[in-house]
Amino acid sequence: MPDSTRYHLVLEYDGTRFCGWQSQSNALSVQDTLEEAIFRYSRARVRTVAAGRTDTGVHALAQQIHFDLPGQPAAQEVRDALNYYLRAGQSHDITVTQAAIAHSEFHARFDAVRRHYLYRLLVHPTPPALDRKRVLWVRHPINLPAMEQAASCLLGKHDFSAFRAASCQAKTSIRTMESLTLTQQTTATGDEVHLRFTADGFLQNQIRIIVGSLLMIGLERWQPERLEQILQSARRSEAGPTAAAQGLYFAGADYPPVP
Amino acid sequence: MPDSTRYHLVLEYDGTRFCGWQSQSNALSVQDTLEEAIFRYSRARVRTVAAGRTDTGVHALAQQIHFDLPGQPAAQEVRDALNYYLRAGQSHDITVTQAAIAHSEFHARFDAVRRHYLYRLLVHPTPPALDRKRVLWVRHPINLPAMEQAASCLLGKHDFSAFRAASCQAKTSIRTMESLTLTQQTTATGDEVHLRFTADGFLQNQIRIIVGSLLMIGLERWQPERLEQILQSARRSEAGPTAAAQGLYFAGADYPPVP
Repeated sequence: MPDSTRYHLVLEYDGTRFCGWQSQSNALSVQDTLEEAIFRYSRARVRTVAAGRTDTGVHALAQQIHFDLPGQPAAQEVRDALNYYLRAGQSHDITVTQAAIAHSEFHARFDAVRRHYLYRLLVHPTPPALDRKRVLWVRHPINLPAMEQAASCLLGKHDFSAFRAASCQAKTSIRTMESLTLTQQTTATGDEVHLRFTADGFLQNQIRIIVGSLLMIGLERWQPERLEQILQSARRSEAGPTAAAQGLYFAGADYPPVP
Repeated sequence: MPDSTRYHLVLEYDGTRFCGWQSQSNALSVQDTLEEAIFRYSRARVRTVAAGRTDTGVHALAQQIHFDLPGQPAAQEVRDALNYYLRAGQSHDITVTQAAIAHSEFHARFDAVRRHYLYRLLVHPTPPALDRKRVLWVRHPINLPAMEQAASCLLGKHDFSAFRAASCQAKTSIRTMESLTLTQQTTATGDEVHLRFTADGFLQNQIRIIVGSLLMIGLERWQPERLEQILQSARRSEAGPTAAAQGLYFAGADYPPVP
């Protein structure tokens, strides 16, 4: 029996009432809320590590985390116990969707080779009611082919300084965008456009600034060619506004096969 | 220019914080909230009439209503103005999705020849986070073919007394179920089963009691044949529990073509 065991969990959460993933002294984070549930279950004070630090109001469909627990409880027990203690603490907005025992060196952040995000736009003449905290509302029709044409310049390895928050602390602004797709989805409450992003990693606010810039093109205020000029400029002031947090979802991370 | 004009509106709403559609003296209703927005826009105190009276916590994808306004403002102005005043009053959970000028005798309730409801089940080992107020969570796998087999006995004209709340005030419990379908849907957050109901009308809690009974069959606590026995018994005590309001959506009403 080992002294402790490393767990790899997948989380779904509604980011609406949280200051983001990361623990903060003066605000409620997903991380602190989860760690409190881990403590109530295990009596262990543990630090969790996540694949992606979501900002205030950003949701997760599949956040990936790791942490160690004393002993070796079964992964499904950990999953169900944390869901129980989260709800006992009135945190109905966080769910552990999957749990597995990982090898002792597994690292949810450093081992992630690829990260996926989803951004949801509701394109409709009237605002959403049921999904008001789940999508960005766009009142006017958008030119999707123009947005797709523009977005293609972002594929590959680039300096994404133009699409980076002033407060971003990453050491380098070079990232490799592996895919960026725009698809139309018809849901019960309207027509949505889903933007899906895959890269080795993302800078702070990178997706939201890209979406804000693509919307300027979709609304035909900018020509599609302007996106490449913005990218080349490497200046945040050239790019569009930061799109609202409520439309953004951390959608997963990929890890190499276990050696 | 007529003294007043009749409007036919379609509403989407999140039922979570409301006591239901119908105005009540001691609780917040969708109807009163909407009528307050109509007053702020038009300075007219009007009474609205809806196709279906949704209960506490029940949502609407397409509630249908009518009311009269002085003068003849354009339908799109009415739609946009009500969405503005609803939001100015912090009611982001109600949206007017469509508006049209109706003929002066149009009646959203009495003219409706058919009503549609949707009930959403999330069948998943872990509870929903993002959709926690939008679906009923079913932890264990369900036998969908058994539920479909059972449900077929409800099609056609029947006395639905067994599936009727004690407080139901309808004059007759005879209704004609035109269709009842169960479909599997894969969404970003899990596997859902959508139950869609179409009938000339529904008794109070009828759908929720049918869903609660079908779930007893889906979970294999009851045989499929039992649903027909319950229907024949005409006794509420024979049927299953009333399924939670949060999974139910008023999904529309049909009207005859304008003469």
